[in-house]
Amino acid sequence: MQSTNYAYVRGQVLPLEQATLHISDLSIQRGYGVFDYFRVFDGRPVFLDEYLARFRASAQALHLPVLLSDEELKAVIQELIHKNAMPASGMKMILTGGYSANGFDLAEPSLLILQQPLNLPGPDMLEQGIKIITHDYVREVPRAKTINYTIGIRLIEEIRRRGASDVLYQRGGVVSEFPRCNLFIVTHDNTVLTPSENVLLGVTRKHVLALAGKKYKAAEDTVTLEEVYNAKEVFLTSTTKRILPVVQVDERVIGTGKPGEVTLALLQDLVRLEEEAGAREKV
Amino acid sequence: MQSTNYAYVRGQVLPLEQATLHISDLSIQRGYGVFDYFRVFDGRPVFLDEYLARFRASAQALHLPVLLSDEELKAVIQELIHKNAMPASGMKMILTGGYSANGFDLAEPSLLILQQPLNLPGPDMLEQGIKIITHDYVREVPRAKTINYTIGIRLIEEIRRRGASDVLYQRGGVVSEFPRCNLFIVTHDNTVLTPSENVLLGVTRKHVLALAGKKYKAAEDTVTLEEVYNAKEVFLTSTTKRILPVVQVDERVIGTGKPGEVTLALLQDLVRLEEEAGAREKV
Repeated sequence: MQSTNYAYVRGQVLPLEQATLHISDLSIQRGYGVFDYFRVFDGRPVFLDEYLARFRASAQALHLPVLLSDEELKAVIQELIHKNAMPASGMKMILTGGYSANGFDLAEPSLLILQQPLNLPGPDMLEQGIKIITHDYVREVPRAKTINYTIGIRLIEEIRRRGASDVLYQRGGVVSEFPRCNLFIVTHDNTVLTPSENVLLGVTRKHVLALAGKKYKAAEDTVTLEEVYNAKEVFLTSTTKRILPVVQVDERVIGTGKPGEVTLALLQDLVRLEEEAGAREKV
Repeated sequence: MQSTNYAYVRGQVLPLEQATLHISDLSIQRGYGVFDYFRVFDGRPVFLDEYLARFRASAQALHLPVLLSDEELKAVIQELIHKNAMPASGMKMILTGGYSANGFDLAEPSLLILQQPLNLPGPDMLEQGIKIITHDYVREVPRAKTINYTIGIRLIEEIRRRGASDVLYQRGGVVSEFPRCNLFIVTHDNTVLTPSENVLLGVTRKHVLALAGKKYKAAEDTVTLEEVYNAKEVFLTSTTKRILPVVQVDERVIGTGKPGEVTLALLQDLVRLEEEAGAREKV
């Protein structure tokens, strides 16, 4: 029998199937909220302090007070990890505008924390790489991880129709990010670049940039769509995907059409870093 | 004792306090959904067919099937009107991406219908008019009434701080709409103009444009922020506000600083039209 999955909802730890919000919540009424997501590895959150800091920054950008201290959040996280006993998983914290009397003005925020099974990309995806398409868009509050994915979800149909796995946002020929991932390119002189503006400051992005800086030239900079098309290697980073090679962008094949050596070397470095961090991390 | 308010949630009519969605719903996870809102006048929905048509258009723009036919929707609406017996009210239909297994892909949509008390603007607001501010923004899918109000709600604090009542979106000096209202201006030669692009096609906007055309020159066109500042009259339209005079935009006083005669004449015409429509409307 599968054990019960528990979630935290507005002050209570409940079985997931009982985890609900009233329809007056501003997430339902107005799509108003922020969230964050971190991985749990052998019962330990990985890079938790960085995710908590970003969660607070997102909340502040939307004028939402986080009702719990970091210590209180960590206690809830620890309780859920203990109760749910999931091996490979991720944990999501959502903070919404709360139960609004008039369906528009902010109320006391609703804080949710839930744990979900997580499968990292399998060897197939890493060996073959993925195809992506591009779309003209910049997120509304790029530095905040808001719950607004209207454009990203609306594009799922087009992504599938064009045989791709994800979509890269660009505006005026300058690229920014994916709905849920950051972008990196490797130039023909082995410089590792990631867009500096209009992006969410990904935790994996930050670590990969630091790892890349140990072996190569690495920088945050303006990256154009032309530079992506003509790159030697392209890859994306995210908490759930770590590093995933991109071998086709729109109708353009990238480099040799196979995952590149810089990409795969950085993935090895990242896995090692995570293992060290997971071993160190305490809640 | 106040009578129970009932709402429709995913196929069931329930007391409002029991109206909840599971936290896997894509409105909570990803702010993904559309809605619409119409007024109920003496137990009869006003201009219902126009609101239903727009609700379907919004749903289609976000790839969300509306699970009920117009007849079925009208039956639910009639049941709620009967059970709730509210005198002055509005009714909101929300359609979200549904209970998503992975928190991203669309599921069977969640349809909600709820009825809320509604107060139209009082004589004070109509006599004095309101002050508004402006902000650089264009909605992501302007023709669809999505639930995404990240920018609108985030601006509430600034609106209040600057002593205003609402915010007009502009980009590159071209104005579009308010978070929840359409804009009209009256020029010094008594031409009534409303922005043509990047706006929600408001039902009240459409009626006011038609009413204006009977007495004045009236058109949809590009409207610049300079034209707003220099207009003889400015007003906004919406389902909940009908017509509301705007007497100050940012630091610029509009016209005489008092509600204008064209604005007030159109409000009288609109009230008359609504009364006729309300008397005719059948569910």
